[in-house]
Amino acid sequence: MKYINIEDFKITEPVSIADCPTRIELDAATDRVEKKQEKLRVRLGKLQDELYAHGKYSVLVCLQGMDTAGKDSLIREVFKDFNARGVVVHSFKQPTSLELGYDYLWRHIIALPPRGKFGVFNRTHYENLLVTRVHPEYILNENIPGINSVDDIDDDFWEARFDQVNNFEKHITDNGTIVFKFFLNLSKEEQRHRLLRRLEKRKKHWKFSPADMKERKLWEKYQWCFEEILNKTSKPNAYWYNIPADDKPVARYLVTKIMYDTLKTYTDIKEPELDPKVEARLDEYMDILNKEE
Amino acid sequence: MKYINIEDFKITEPVSIADCPTRIELDAATDRVEKKQEKLRVRLGKLQDELYAHGKYSVLVCLQGMDTAGKDSLIREVFKDFNARGVVVHSFKQPTSLELGYDYLWRHIIALPPRGKFGVFNRTHYENLLVTRVHPEYILNENIPGINSVDDIDDDFWEARFDQVNNFEKHITDNGTIVFKFFLNLSKEEQRHRLLRRLEKRKKHWKFSPADMKERKLWEKYQWCFEEILNKTSKPNAYWYNIPADDKPVARYLVTKIMYDTLKTYTDIKEPELDPKVEARLDEYMDILNKEE
Repeated sequence: MKYINIEDFKITEPVSIADCPTRIELDAATDRVEKKQEKLRVRLGKLQDELYAHGKYSVLVCLQGMDTAGKDSLIREVFKDFNARGVVVHSFKQPTSLELGYDYLWRHIIALPPRGKFGVFNRTHYENLLVTRVHPEYILNENIPGINSVDDIDDDFWEARFDQVNNFEKHITDNGTIVFKFFLNLSKEEQRHRLLRRLEKRKKHWKFSPADMKERKLWEKYQWCFEEILNKTSKPNAYWYNIPADDKPVARYLVTKIMYDTLKTYTDIKEPELDPKVEARLDEYMDILNKEE
Repeated sequence: MKYINIEDFKITEPVSIADCPTRIELDAATDRVEKKQEKLRVRLGKLQDELYAHGKYSVLVCLQGMDTAGKDSLIREVFKDFNARGVVVHSFKQPTSLELGYDYLWRHIIALPPRGKFGVFNRTHYENLLVTRVHPEYILNENIPGINSVDDIDDDFWEARFDQVNNFEKHITDNGTIVFKFFLNLSKEEQRHRLLRRLEKRKKHWKFSPADMKERKLWEKYQWCFEEILNKTSKPNAYWYNIPADDKPVARYLVTKIMYDTLKTYTDIKEPELDPKVEARLDEYMDILNKEE
């Protein structure tokens, strides 16, 4: 199996979305890739235990991708060997009227993971630079003063929003959150296959919505928005990774490996030392317990 | 009674805290000042109703000041004629262990007022640039990676925090929150009188804590931190106002007037127009109701 260098998937300079691969060859059978992923996710689960005991960092995992890109099953497979205590998944749908009462980042901020935990955003705050950019009329639901019609939503509006998102991520990374941003990059042709499969299998029908067909027609617009996001918000404190997503086991392996390899570089993440005063008296404590009737 | 120009209290350029007055003369008896405040707070309450119906802006009122500066009684008097529906007060104490699990702004963000409402922060996110600056050892409770001792809390740390606070306020003001920041500026001598009164009156004893005596000894350090805050975070989108607080009725009047005069400049705040299609049929609706048996 081909050696993977996670740096190859990190967006560190301006990219054209057309040049970002949706498929890579690992020269290995699927079950071999799955085995490698399994091994790694066990180690990632152990690392989570250390992160929990250490209690200083939290990890925010952001997943974005078109419909059928495989976000849900990726979450299932990547976090399979986590203690459930250690990870919280938030799937963000259309904002509710409660959420629309606040600025658009509010609902994401209240869902951030606390220190010691992983938080997964299944669709993220980036929807505010994506679905609302494709459908600017949705912005009107936010009731922002001065934004009275779609004509008010100009380039300056989007530039300000990009700055706000970058500042938000800078703030949380400065204060101890490690942020991973994964773009599950699916080809249009692979989406066609997956949608067809949803329609063919009765058990998968519930996942289908006619809205998916409508959004698919806007494919090019979405791709352009993704390109803007990758180019304007991939920063040293919170990089985007392009995850070729046409092959699900490969995507899951990449995501697991990127998180594991990166977190291993945080050499300070470990169980805290016991207070030396307590350490020095451990024999005493054992003695007391041993002598108990 | 002297004419008040609210601009005189706005911090628009670097100041020395020693030059910020703790007392001003309005050339009027106390009851006259109170009467004026009463009239204005009724109008502010009506303006709140319009803000609620309009539903686009929220108002965040930040109150900072030394112990006994009069924050609680100011809140009581300024919002007396509000519909309780329209205002939410949050008094921030020492962060709880739940709150310490997140970055220091998190507990303030979840308490932000929704569109249409006033939110009052009785002590605010500025405590993170104030009490923790006077007592940097408190920062260690935040469990920030890389901050392992007080020596790690250097100038860069504080500069980053000032930027984070400014970015946070920029984000919420860009998205429809109007922010008022009031520094209730008390003299050390007036604090002495007020602390003595707390000790003399049994009914006020509960408000006293020996910690107040300890913090009073750090008066100069607090003043220096306030000066830093005024000079680094008073911005066109969220100005600080110096409120001379040695005379409580004057302070309450000033705060009411600053909010009222400022909000009046938002000429778009008004009840929304009824949909013209509905408007055109009002006679019909009346007819239906009139003909009901």
